[in-house]
Amino acid sequence: MILEQIHEPADLKKLSIKQLKLLAQELRTEIVNVVSEHGGHLSSNLGAVELTIAIHYVFDAPADKLVMDVGHQSYAHKLLTGRYDRFPTLRQKGGISGFPNIDESEYDAFTAGHASTAISAALGMARTRDIMRGDNNVIALLGDGALTGGMCFEALNDAGQSNTRMIVVLNDNDMSIAPNVGAVNRYLTRLRQSKGYIAVKHGVRSRLEKLPVVGARLYRFLEKLRNLVRSIFVDDKFFEALGFKYMGPVDGHDLKQLIRVLKRAKNYDEPQLIHVVTHKGRGYRPAEDHPTRFHGIAPFYIESGDRKDASGTTSGSIVARQLIDMADSDIRVCAITAAMPSGTGMDAFQKAHPDRFFDVGIAEEHAVTMAAGMASQGMKPYVAIYSTFLQRAYDQIMLDVCRNGLPVTFLIDRAGLVGEDGATHQGVFDLSYLRSIPGLVIAAPRDVRDLKQMVALSRELDGPMAIRYPRACGDLGPAIQSQGAFEIGRWELISAGTDVMIFAVGQMVQPALQAAVELMGKGISAGVVDARFVAPMDTDMLIQQASAVRLVVTAEQNVLAGGFGEGVLDALARVGVDRPVLTLGVPNRFIAHATIDQQVEECGLGALDIARRVQEKLKAMEASA
Amino acid sequence: MILEQIHEPADLKKLSIKQLKLLAQELRTEIVNVVSEHGGHLSSNLGAVELTIAIHYVFDAPADKLVMDVGHQSYAHKLLTGRYDRFPTLRQKGGISGFPNIDESEYDAFTAGHASTAISAALGMARTRDIMRGDNNVIALLGDGALTGGMCFEALNDAGQSNTRMIVVLNDNDMSIAPNVGAVNRYLTRLRQSKGYIAVKHGVRSRLEKLPVVGARLYRFLEKLRNLVRSIFVDDKFFEALGFKYMGPVDGHDLKQLIRVLKRAKNYDEPQLIHVVTHKGRGYRPAEDHPTRFHGIAPFYIESGDRKDASGTTSGSIVARQLIDMADSDIRVCAITAAMPSGTGMDAFQKAHPDRFFDVGIAEEHAVTMAAGMASQGMKPYVAIYSTFLQRAYDQIMLDVCRNGLPVTFLIDRAGLVGEDGATHQGVFDLSYLRSIPGLVIAAPRDVRDLKQMVALSRELDGPMAIRYPRACGDLGPAIQSQGAFEIGRWELISAGTDVMIFAVGQMVQPALQAAVELMGKGISAGVVDARFVAPMDTDMLIQQASAVRLVVTAEQNVLAGGFGEGVLDALARVGVDRPVLTLGVPNRFIAHATIDQQVEECGLGALDIARRVQEKLKAMEASA
Repeated sequence: MILEQIHEPADLKKLSIKQLKLLAQELRTEIVNVVSEHGGHLSSNLGAVELTIAIHYVFDAPADKLVMDVGHQSYAHKLLTGRYDRFPTLRQKGGISGFPNIDESEYDAFTAGHASTAISAALGMARTRDIMRGDNNVIALLGDGALTGGMCFEALNDAGQSNTRMIVVLNDNDMSIAPNVGAVNRYLTRLRQSKGYIAVKHGVRSRLEKLPVVGARLYRFLEKLRNLVRSIFVDDKFFEALGFKYMGPVDGHDLKQLIRVLKRAKNYDEPQLIHVVTHKGRGYRPAEDHPTRFHGIAPFYIESGDRKDASGTTSGSIVARQLIDMADSDIRVCAITAAMPSGTGMDAFQKAHPDRFFDVGIAEEHAVTMAAGMASQGMKPYVAIYSTFLQRAYDQIMLDVCRNGLPVTFLIDRAGLVGEDGATHQGVFDLSYLRSIPGLVIAAPRDVRDLKQMVALSRELDGPMAIRYPRACGDLGPAIQSQGAFEIGRWELISAGTDVMIFAVGQMVQPALQAAVELMGKGISAGVVDARFVAPMDTDMLIQQASAVRLVVTAEQNVLAGGFGEGVLDALARVGVDRPVLTLGVPNRFIAHATIDQQVEECGLGALDIARRVQEKLKAMEASA
Repeated sequence: MILEQIHEPADLKKLSIKQLKLLAQELRTEIVNVVSEHGGHLSSNLGAVELTIAIHYVFDAPADKLVMDVGHQSYAHKLLTGRYDRFPTLRQKGGISGFPNIDESEYDAFTAGHASTAISAALGMARTRDIMRGDNNVIALLGDGALTGGMCFEALNDAGQSNTRMIVVLNDNDMSIAPNVGAVNRYLTRLRQSKGYIAVKHGVRSRLEKLPVVGARLYRFLEKLRNLVRSIFVDDKFFEALGFKYMGPVDGHDLKQLIRVLKRAKNYDEPQLIHVVTHKGRGYRPAEDHPTRFHGIAPFYIESGDRKDASGTTSGSIVARQLIDMADSDIRVCAITAAMPSGTGMDAFQKAHPDRFFDVGIAEEHAVTMAAGMASQGMKPYVAIYSTFLQRAYDQIMLDVCRNGLPVTFLIDRAGLVGEDGATHQGVFDLSYLRSIPGLVIAAPRDVRDLKQMVALSRELDGPMAIRYPRACGDLGPAIQSQGAFEIGRWELISAGTDVMIFAVGQMVQPALQAAVELMGKGISAGVVDARFVAPMDTDMLIQQASAVRLVVTAEQNVLAGGFGEGVLDALARVGVDRPVLTLGVPNRFIAHATIDQQVEECGLGALDIARRVQEKLKAMEASA
């Protein structure tokens, strides 16, 4: 096996093209094996195998800096840079991350997670090299999906004018996660289909040179034309306008061609873009046939491609079902997503109401402001974006939506701890950044029944609202089903208590109830309030219930800084209710990849941990009394 | 006077071109008069006068939607849409806003403030029209500076593929606030210089049509060429790739030509971009000569263009001076700004160290991640951006800088209440959104002396840091000058108190000291702590000083939600220090334009208000005791 002998990229350089091809096969087998076992990102990683080999064959990492965008294509890179042994620990607690990570390897030049950052980071590295008078290469590797993000354009615009030597490798597989969107994608398709151009050029030129001289004026005219034609046939239009030298399209599975083009790129002293065409899922049939399904995938059977655990109902599918019903009778209802129709469940809405569904690409900022534009004209837009990605649109939520009081509803999926995607994808900041925005209603359902009620309520609200929920909301069952109709800013007392009251948000209601049972066994009477609106708060219920107990507890899957707990502290201080408060939430640090259960444990947010921490606090209170 | 008779855009349609030209002069006079009196945005507004007239002459607002980007070109629009009488109240408390505002007029289709949002909002409106089967026009008007923002690209990319009927009017004055940057700007310059093209096209075509038939193959070849040439001479390269029909360049001061082109645009059923060339400051000589100085300007003498009040020293100029000194001896020190070299004071750094200064355009996201890329390679980047604009880069600060622990320093200017720019420009959210980010040191100087110390300290810190300060920090003088060297996370007790301790942040230290004096007169002993690090907090001093008084007070120019005060509440709750806390800050709503003093008063944050609120709280405590 060749792969076992690759300890660093330098080892690649001794191999023949034939051996490199074998290596590509081995990499694919290893990637499929490990991902089938533990889950991960498959389609994009399989597509980038030859490209990764070629880059490490031609360049000299870590002296040369390879900046990978997002990192959905980093697995082959990890396997070739000394992490073969640890690769089976992928995305597991204590194991290697599913994304490039500067803490993990000197070969990971930059930590990635969110899309469209690679060119910016690479430009920073190239400018540093110029200032420090270094001579290393800087390569940004990104997918065509990332190009729909505005940051890429900001960076291209800056780099293209700078004349800084850097190489952007565009891995064009015609998809982001879902099939790609946007005018640039259409333009790339035209380029992909124009492979003949470079060959044609020479023919054209020689023919022009042989043209009979019909007259001086015509000759000068044709001279002009000739120059024109030369530039057209060789160059693209778009990237040239952005100041980049364009090379391509190159077959991304042809190692020889890739190596040749990359070697040539080393010689140019300007910003270059190499357009590489690859196929998502390449080499593993189920992923080739269903690249979206195998984008991010749970453990699966290699032979069939079927998932090992039948996947439960997602929150997104519930929300989509309800939106479809609403849209059937209400023309104002429309849905917007940012390159995540499948992950957010909105693909179902797309099928049902294609004319009122908008996938804008990896463009959260635009998604939010476009929704504001629609709402300003009487629509009722629902913007479905993961908690972590919505961070990109903080300013737009504030100024374009909330400053104008427009009725846009944010469907914030993957809120709270997210598991294996790790530190760069945690949905544990939304309560903090959303709470700071005046006029935004923030809701979190304790289960799927409440999620439905909240979506229904949002339709009646003539103002902005955010509903945040985890991937799967679960169903707490009819026994502890919500009572009565939902009202903005009204909480629900689920169970009464005389010693302790736990004010729990969203997915924390269930462990809070369990903790209350646990505490009862210790002779402590703990009640639970479902604080389903983080803003505005139910100050009446807060004051009433807090005043009735010895200890107030808050529980949320959000960082403590700026979170719900601090809001409770502020509200109590404001009215002068003087009770000790124990705030439970995610500590103010980044939580690395692991299972959600492990992360919950790490944060001390499981039912038993809550019970234990409450008891400790009560003891401390008694000791100091 | 014609202007007095324009009550709505329809009144324009009765006028002759000659009258419209007179109107343009009147508009300019009115704009210069009012801005010279009260300050405002001058250069860009003067440049857009004819363009605004032409748009309202051709289209039918408010049925047709005119979405203005930023709104630095909205004054003529306001004067033509029924706000002539109120125009002298511009940017004053209770008066009209300096930006488009949907609450102010039905002619303001969208509220703007931050750049690059117009195409997104307009696309939302156009899509709504299509869903609702309306037939109105939607026009997005933006400057070429806005085009450097990634959001514009996200919107163009989406709109260009949608085939939705909408018109983007690009007001190209070759500047954003400072001279413009980026490859697209260079490309626009090429277009501007190619005015002859449209005229040439017809000549070319007719000549081609007369070409002798030299042979069948050559003929077919020339046919191909002919099609090629037709598309080249008429179309641009860049916007066509983005799916937009390009028209231009058009002389933006030629009313006849503008009206003709806009009328033609009405007929096309696709996304179009009209490239209009204007001159900033047009018609007022001092502004033509110094467009940057007259971008946003305080009251000035019309004749000379000189400012009425000699402007005091800005925080930015102090910071720049210090950075220059640091950079002289430390090659790692570099500065980055997002289209604000002048506003942030960094133009001085640019002059001193041009090779280590980077103006990336209106591209805050890219600015931050590029800084991260530089820091990852050993640079010490300083990113100077206004508080309100840095909101755009929340995600990048978190994941690209702080997740990686990289030593990027954010110089956050215009923090706190900002005055006349109003609700869309308040710097009162940064403490909230920055506090939620793990690992970021957040500092706020009480005066210019401390600002210098903080910048010096940031250089020693091997991690991310934010320093937030208002436009002018002031100097509290040697009497209450900071004692000892600064240490991360250490506060300073300025004056002791036995009844009350005020923990004040940044510009609130001075009024807190005054309030303490005021309270002393009422027999209340109030001390003041300069809480110069909002993160990490000085919990030792907090516990010690809070335990020694009856009432803890926090004071900050930041919204209360998620702000410093909540952090103090959380810290006290954590250690079980049980004291009433009065949190003073900006209430959780948007604060409209007025002077800073008026806004401080509105928020109850002046010295006398602080003293009053402390007394009230003490009384309430006594009553309930």
